[in-house]
Amino acid sequence: MDYRLYYSPGAASMAVHWMLIEMGIPFDAQLVDIDAGNQRNPDYLRLNPSGRVPTLVVDGTPRHESAALLMLLAERHPEAALAPAPGSADRAAWLERMIYLANTLLPAMRDWFYADVDGEPAGAEAVQALARRRIEEACDQLNADLADGRDYLVGGKLSTVDFLAVVVMRWTRNMPRPALGWPHLARYIRGLRALPSFIELNAREGLTEWRNQDD
Amino acid sequence: MDYRLYYSPGAASMAVHWMLIEMGIPFDAQLVDIDAGNQRNPDYLRLNPSGRVPTLVVDGTPRHESAALLMLLAERHPEAALAPAPGSADRAAWLERMIYLANTLLPAMRDWFYADVDGEPAGAEAVQALARRRIEEACDQLNADLADGRDYLVGGKLSTVDFLAVVVMRWTRNMPRPALGWPHLARYIRGLRALPSFIELNAREGLTEWRNQDD
Repeated sequence: MDYRLYYSPGAASMAVHWMLIEMGIPFDAQLVDIDAGNQRNPDYLRLNPSGRVPTLVVDGTPRHESAALLMLLAERHPEAALAPAPGSADRAAWLERMIYLANTLLPAMRDWFYADVDGEPAGAEAVQALARRRIEEACDQLNADLADGRDYLVGGKLSTVDFLAVVVMRWTRNMPRPALGWPHLARYIRGLRALPSFIELNAREGLTEWRNQDD
Repeated sequence: MDYRLYYSPGAASMAVHWMLIEMGIPFDAQLVDIDAGNQRNPDYLRLNPSGRVPTLVVDGTPRHESAALLMLLAERHPEAALAPAPGSADRAAWLERMIYLANTLLPAMRDWFYADVDGEPAGAEAVQALARRRIEEACDQLNADLADGRDYLVGGKLSTVDFLAVVVMRWTRNMPRPALGWPHLARYIRGLRALPSFIELNAREGLTEWRNQDD
């Protein structure tokens, strides 16, 4: 198994980077400097025509979509047990939550941060208002899921759902209502941020915000 | 294996309904009359607190999210071969395309049809303009994928990706640029609509638009 991850610090690639570190398997990491516009370099566009991160080159073939990459890695490394096994009682809930994050939170976050780039700048405010509403509704939902005191979203143990959820929650840190304002979500986030793999991830991506020691 | 599908004609539930018919397995189908507001009946909200379709009750437990349900059914019924097998060469492409449809096309369609319900009516036009742009970009993308003459999106054979893609393409039929206006996409759609399972699906849901004989 041969992996090369193209990432940008703090981007959606962070969930895949986290999982690779947590699994303790060898991989190569390549920084794509988005501030310098390097995601539009011809060499990178050959790997990812949409010019986004992450790209994970798997045994020589470039693959995309962070949620799909997390699911692919879980399947290729069953020994890491980062998803409920096929046929197990928690499998349906895991699939449902992965898709929920992918089709509710991820697109709303895209709208929040890129409304003026993806669409007409004049319409950005309206797009962002709806995005904010959806993100806060999703925080309500996740907070309710966690109200029973659970440490992980699905199946009583760490899974790909948690990598994706926490990375997306990180993006709320400068929004009007950061995720840490929801009590159960805050407890959950702090628990996940205490993992050695999350601490190592921040060090490798050079991130010094939104760690447990920062707030 | 015991399945009960709650569906509304032509809604996202149509992809799951199609798959169940294609697999030829027994299931119970329950109509949720959205025009009559029955998705907000207390009995239905107990099964699906978001008041959306589909809900698939699997061995007594209600499950949601159409893309997740398609993936779950593919996994529970490997003999139907409606997804590339785990570990096979086409598996990564299948996951990537399922997630792409779930996080690009499905949310843009939600914006197109429900901008004024989900958000402020005053902002609906801006939200819909961005949604239209994204839907047309996705049609460009799918059309490009199909330009090599392939009949199915992934792996050279029918998969869950096709059920979801064709049902979403159906929703473009009254949009400014219907999917049938893209040549490779049109060929693909007509091929899928010729399947006996699609013809049966339309009959069971009482749909008499956007069949091969209708245009």
